[in-house]
Amino acid sequence: MSILRGIIPPLLTPFHPDGSLDLDSLDRLVEHLLAGGVHGLFVLGSSGQVAYLTDAERDTVVERVVATTAGRVPVVVGTPDLTARRIAEQARRAEALGAAAVVVTAPLYALNNAAEIAEHFRIVAASVSIPVIAYDVPVRGPAKLARDMLVQLGREGVIAGVKDSSGDDVGFRRLVDANRAAGSPLSVSTGHEVVCDGMLLLGADGCVPGLANVDPAGYVRMFNAAERGDWDAARTEQDRINRLFEIAFVPQGRSGDAGGIGAFKAACAALGVITSATMPAPIEALSDDEVAGIVAIVREVGLI
Amino acid sequence: MSILRGIIPPLLTPFHPDGSLDLDSLDRLVEHLLAGGVHGLFVLGSSGQVAYLTDAERDTVVERVVATTAGRVPVVVGTPDLTARRIAEQARRAEALGAAAVVVTAPLYALNNAAEIAEHFRIVAASVSIPVIAYDVPVRGPAKLARDMLVQLGREGVIAGVKDSSGDDVGFRRLVDANRAAGSPLSVSTGHEVVCDGMLLLGADGCVPGLANVDPAGYVRMFNAAERGDWDAARTEQDRINRLFEIAFVPQGRSGDAGGIGAFKAACAALGVITSATMPAPIEALSDDEVAGIVAIVREVGLI
Amino acid sequence: MSILRGIIPPLLTPFHPDGSLDLDSLDRLVEHLLAGGVHGLFVLGSSGQVAYLTDAERDTVVERVVATTAGRVPVVVGTPDLTARRIAEQARRAEALGAAAVVVTAPLYALNNAAEIAEHFRIVAASVSIPVIAYDVPVRGPAKLARDMLVQLGREGVIAGVKDSSGDDVGFRRLVDANRAAGSPLSVSTGHEVVCDGMLLLGADGCVPGLANVDPAGYVRMFNAAERGDWDAARTEQDRINRLFEIAFVPQGRSGDAGGIGAFKAACAALGVITSATMPAPIEALSDDEVAGIVAIVREVGLI
Amino acid sequence: MSILRGIIPPLLTPFHPDGSLDLDSLDRLVEHLLAGGVHGLFVLGSSGQVAYLTDAERDTVVERVVATTAGRVPVVVGTPDLTARRIAEQARRAEALGAAAVVVTAPLYALNNAAEIAEHFRIVAASVSIPVIAYDVPVRGPAKLARDMLVQLGREGVIAGVKDSSGDDVGFRRLVDANRAAGSPLSVSTGHEVVCDGMLLLGADGCVPGLANVDPAGYVRMFNAAERGDWDAARTEQDRINRLFEIAFVPQGRSGDAGGIGAFKAACAALGVITSATMPAPIEALSDDEVAGIVAIVREVGLI
Repeated sequence: MSILRGIIPPLLTPFHPDGSLDLDSLDRLVEHLLAGGVHGLFVLGSSGQVAYLTDAERDTVVERVVATTAGRVPVVVGTPDLTARRIAEQARRAEALGAAAVVVTAPLYALNNAAEIAEHFRIVAASVSIPVIAYDVPVRGPAKLARDMLVQLGREGVIAGVKDSSGDDVGFRRLVDANRAAGSPLSVSTGHEVVCDGMLLLGADGCVPGLANVDPAGYVRMFNAAERGDWDAARTEQDRINRLFEIAFVPQGRSGDAGGIGAFKAACAALGVITSATMPAPIEALSDDEVAGIVAIVREVGLI
Repeated sequence: MSILRGIIPPLLTPFHPDGSLDLDSLDRLVEHLLAGGVHGLFVLGSSGQVAYLTDAERDTVVERVVATTAGRVPVVVGTPDLTARRIAEQARRAEALGAAAVVVTAPLYALNNAAEIAEHFRIVAASVSIPVIAYDVPVRGPAKLARDMLVQLGREGVIAGVKDSSGDDVGFRRLVDANRAAGSPLSVSTGHEVVCDGMLLLGADGCVPGLANVDPAGYVRMFNAAERGDWDAARTEQDRINRLFEIAFVPQGRSGDAGGIGAFKAACAALGVITSATMPAPIEALSDDEVAGIVAIVREVGLI
Repeated sequence: MSILRGIIPPLLTPFHPDGSLDLDSLDRLVEHLLAGGVHGLFVLGSSGQVAYLTDAERDTVVERVVATTAGRVPVVVGTPDLTARRIAEQARRAEALGAAAVVVTAPLYALNNAAEIAEHFRIVAASVSIPVIAYDVPVRGPAKLARDMLVQLGREGVIAGVKDSSGDDVGFRRLVDANRAAGSPLSVSTGHEVVCDGMLLLGADGCVPGLANVDPAGYVRMFNAAERGDWDAARTEQDRINRLFEIAFVPQGRSGDAGGIGAFKAACAALGVITSATMPAPIEALSDDEVAGIVAIVREVGLI
Repeated sequence: MSILRGIIPPLLTPFHPDGSLDLDSLDRLVEHLLAGGVHGLFVLGSSGQVAYLTDAERDTVVERVVATTAGRVPVVVGTPDLTARRIAEQARRAEALGAAAVVVTAPLYALNNAAEIAEHFRIVAASVSIPVIAYDVPVRGPAKLARDMLVQLGREGVIAGVKDSSGDDVGFRRLVDANRAAGSPLSVSTGHEVVCDGMLLLGADGCVPGLANVDPAGYVRMFNAAERGDWDAARTEQDRINRLFEIAFVPQGRSGDAGGIGAFKAACAALGVITSATMPAPIEALSDDEVAGIVAIVREVGLI
């Protein structure tokens, strides 16, 4: 079974107003997602604000989600750090805590070429015994991952899948095709929240939409429609989801880490899934007006 | 009827080996496309290497394609120039020569903000009586066109459609949705050759694929399948087209204007549609090995 | 004598409030600059808002400045257009109107590699008999010009100089050094208004500062100090000029073409050199508050 | 005394051929630099390949350099990590090991706005009692640091200096001027190896050139000439240094982390300062031909 098949939300990380981890809210979020029918959980991703957590906090989150999930679905874990040997340390800790797979970016801060980046993944993969998923997220600094390299690493057994948040759908389609031509060594998923139907049509195995923290059941319905070939139903569901996605555009003039994730947190708080929409320092909190605008949209689409 | 509905290939511009326009080949290309069932023709686009033509040559191309097409489908015309009053001169000439619509980019070389870019489109639109289509092609220098501005210009009647070659499919979906919410003032098409099926699923009116110069009938079959809701057939056809699209990746280490368009020209020459794959100076010609690789793929997919 | 030696201001293009060219103001600007002691005049550059002029207006400006200057200093002319054969048409017209040299960018809108860009300059140079100066201005869309290519084109006699507005001073120093090692075929100037002293120290032949429209005499004093090796005096003069340059930062949230050039125009209008600070459509005019802030700085540094 | 005054080389980190740290070579490098007269040492910078070291290795390097230096000059320490609380952990360890100051970048991987980035520095500064130096190195992913923010943080006492590796010399000059106008709360240095003379002329306190690992005495002579106002001597020395800097361009087609630093290591190995030019995995080693080309240049300029 493909490790990235279906809807795999990138979990938000809830905080208490004093900035400490809110593990009770994290438990409720896990149960909310599982009740929606999701196929896996991805913790310590960008939506989880992993960049702002210390190593000790990362471990606490993984430990808790693994315990709460109790094997009902796989838990995959992000491991962002600067380079391979540092990431290997992160990955080994995640494996020890029960991760089903680790999600690994290209090097950060370093300036590497394609051959060096391929070797980077080989070094990380050699350090753990669980699958490695390559994470393509050029907006956050690492280099764009080349299609041929990804398929080659799949063939070698170095990586088991790709989480594509590059925003390059032509590249994604070509990856899907090249992967199929190579015997499908890779499981491929997209982070494009509002075009999941189109990406499933062209061959994605799954989706990793941050918005699924708010509406997991909607994404699962969309995926199920696509699975049975009812593309009109999939599109209709996606269109409904996209009206909800407008919450991400209510915050204006915010930083990249404040707006969208802030909106998802505000919506989950309004739904009672998490207690507080607190953001980690130094990310600015949304204003009351912004939160009101977000809640109004959640209400309009019928989730409240 | 939407001005951008269906398959509207961006025509290649054929040259004689001495660099002069090859109008007989241009005639054959027009007949090849119309025989394939395309819904419109787009001349003087990026695939038409418009940047390399003088104004006199631009006029010659428009005049000839309009004459050969003889009203069977609309002919839309690209008008790239630096700023609004210069583009208006291009657009007025195109209108006089029989263009059904003009395709207009954001300012080039200039450094404008959003309000100034909106005004830019208003200045151009006020100078002609045919529809203006906004062309979003940030890779060539103009600014990315903002969704809200496009819908607003549609509401004002300034623009009638958008040709999106931005590669930002999430932005495209949001444009489709916002346009629908505004009462669909805009006709919207994508230049994403290898994900046309997915873009049609999510609401595109049409596609402007350079590869359709080579295989217009394939794209028309894909579009027709999508029109009748047979998405599996659409995807299967697109998958076949995508194997053909690999011709664009045979040239390696070429400039952006030499590789893909060079491959389309080489394929059309191999099919006998145009006489020579000559590129305008200073674009480097493809090597014999590259041409052989391209022809092999055209043969593999059964077009020869 | 180096074609780019000394202070060569890129002339503003004055407009009447109705948007038509103000040739009387243009005459006064020329006299203001010559009275300041400048070594040459550069018309139809970015500071001259050339992108917004039609070809007919370009010709009018060149004709008038050549006539007013009457041979007292050389007049060099910008020729921006998309590609080589189009630029050649611009350059031939400029030569016929009396240009001492033409200033030529890399291709716009086109996507070329290094070899194609070199050939681009050869095509333009072959079309005129006056010197060609390469203009490196990557912020406006054309590719960054490679050092080795520039020196090679200098050796071939294709180009006579480089106007560097790339903002890459390390690249500039390496160009200066490589040019000297090749026997100095090129005249090299910088557009970096606020570090002209440092650039002259490291070997620039001249400067092309937009701010010299406002204070030509200050830049000439700085250049003369540098010429006689009095670097402390050069730096002191540059420091004074830099306080004046703060006018460019008074406009906030403006487009790239509205802020700095708008400030230079407002200052020249306050000095009585030009009649109106009118900007070509669609560039937004500065607010009254912004103009007041600019005038206050002009007064502070003692120019009024 | 300004913390960044003079020549402060960013130390290379020597490795044994098996990839482990070579502390004896590190000792020799420290003595080589001190013999050249440098004014401070910067360890764990980009030239030190800090991104490739584990935390344990970082600590070993700091400990050893502090011990070998034995107070002869200040040792400043780089602390790159993703966000403020993680950097604070790095900075506290550096302080405990004897760092005179820490060098701190903007957040990595995170997407923050200006206000959040300012707060980021405040969080780090509050966690240590030694000075914080802001490190502006946008090519490695963190956001460009805004001038006004830096001066404001200087005024607040949050940061004591700026190490500018942004390549934006106009921005640097404006920072120098704004800092002076604010009473010079900041010490400002540039990483622009080949324009240090020009940057000192316009007011830099010091330089942090990677090439100074190879020729510390040359940079110190250049700085001393500048200090006594002998700008012709400074430029002549810098011109000589720049001929040496051509070693950085011998490697062709290498990654950003392989070429320049590889050349500095090869040169230091040829001089006998370090034993091996080994690069940390996955950075590719230079070829024998590249090393021979580098050594030839070192010989030409008379260092061997």
